[in-house]
Amino acid sequence: MTSKYKLALCQMHTSADRDENMETAAHFVNEASDHGARVISLPEMWNCPYENALFGKYAEDEGGPSFEFMSDLARQNEIFLIGGSVPESDNGGLYNTSYIFGSDGNRIGKHRKVHLFDVDVTNGIHFRESDTLSAGDQRTVVDTDFGKIGVAICYDVRFPEMIEAMADAGAYLVVLPASFSMSTGPDHWEILMRARALDNQIYFAACSPSRDINARYQAYGHSLIVNPWGNLIAAAAVDETVIYGDIDLDYLNIVRQEIPVRAQRDGR
Amino acid sequence: MTSKYKLALCQMHTSADRDENMETAAHFVNEASDHGARVISLPEMWNCPYENALFGKYAEDEGGPSFEFMSDLARQNEIFLIGGSVPESDNGGLYNTSYIFGSDGNRIGKHRKVHLFDVDVTNGIHFRESDTLSAGDQRTVVDTDFGKIGVAICYDVRFPEMIEAMADAGAYLVVLPASFSMSTGPDHWEILMRARALDNQIYFAACSPSRDINARYQAYGHSLIVNPWGNLIAAAAVDETVIYGDIDLDYLNIVRQEIPVRAQRDGR
Repeated sequence: MTSKYKLALCQMHTSADRDENMETAAHFVNEASDHGARVISLPEMWNCPYENALFGKYAEDEGGPSFEFMSDLARQNEIFLIGGSVPESDNGGLYNTSYIFGSDGNRIGKHRKVHLFDVDVTNGIHFRESDTLSAGDQRTVVDTDFGKIGVAICYDVRFPEMIEAMADAGAYLVVLPASFSMSTGPDHWEILMRARALDNQIYFAACSPSRDINARYQAYGHSLIVNPWGNLIAAAAVDETVIYGDIDLDYLNIVRQEIPVRAQRDGR
Repeated sequence: MTSKYKLALCQMHTSADRDENMETAAHFVNEASDHGARVISLPEMWNCPYENALFGKYAEDEGGPSFEFMSDLARQNEIFLIGGSVPESDNGGLYNTSYIFGSDGNRIGKHRKVHLFDVDVTNGIHFRESDTLSAGDQRTVVDTDFGKIGVAICYDVRFPEMIEAMADAGAYLVVLPASFSMSTGPDHWEILMRARALDNQIYFAACSPSRDINARYQAYGHSLIVNPWGNLIAAAAVDETVIYGDIDLDYLNIVRQEIPVRAQRDGR
């Protein structure tokens, strides 16, 4: 297992044109790979607008064109690809699904968003994903050449027990494709991501679409990578970009020795 | 039950002179009471220096002079007093203990720090409370005229399951007397406190001693109060001061309706 490598998050623009979104994704993933990243993530719902009314229209069964596109991208670049998320159709159900691909292009895991985004903030965001989507029922930790990586999606991050269980299952990095809103992003985004890293002493990476002020749903942006000490090691602003972070298991283990909370836990 | 009231945290200087520390504590608690605070907290180890070698020297059995002093302070001001913490001796054991007093001066609860501060940070803080102190074995939630309040001490905050259990037991406010170090405070203090408030949708208040650059152990300071949305509503710098926050259960309930994570939890 390689204990040091480069992680990249592609904070890409998403439009209503699926083929254009594929071109954008390919552009940024190829760029990240060229820059030496071995694990690369796309953002939540990278192939369609983030709108309840449209998820069904853009949904594909597993193995559809978006799936094949991501598989090819992983294989051609010989990278591990966390495929952000896409709307998945399965026997009449719709899911917010992240496919994860190995460097040979094979699917090595799949996460269906467990916690759907049903919120109603006064003078702020109102959204009910459960109007159209069904929830996944499993946590997702995949094996890679770089050890175990956890994958969760957006609102999943508000359930600390989920991230903790993934860390306890051996994930030292959790990647979260996520499209926070402009209501909650400014107050909650960075706090949540840094707390998950710090509490579990893991690397935590959140990959957002770039912000589009003309979109009906404006993503917060600010993709970031946090180290096990809870410090930001990479952070985007709101425009399209790729951010890179060096993942280092040796450093993670030092942090766990310095502040041995994982060994000191006693359930009280 | 009164659903709105003023909380105050006394970020006081602590010296090696116990009687002087009592005078300082009385000064700030009286001031906070005069300003309308109904629940007031002192910082961790307010009556002695924060040094392993000295805890035994300053320790008192429950009911000793520091205990009686705090009881009187609560009764005279008719306030609920979270007595920061003091070294407690009990049958040869030493504890880092917070006594909590009702407005009649009666002790309504007592928290012995459960998670001892045993850390060893490279080029930073080395401390082993367990060299001298014994750990408590219980979470502490007390009943007051203002509803249930949780009390934990400093390093306890690094165990999110503890704060979550207190919130689940009905605590809508957790007060944490705490003396973070200059190694961990700058990176971890605000993140931890804001995350506990946000994840549990509770008020969270951390009360530190003021910073003394001549002390062997320099407290980080920066006492703060966080609301259930995760925003700071009061924050000190490093010098002596009292900070105030309006605690509002109606607002807390609005937040819990807006982002209903507590109802959406499913253990996955």
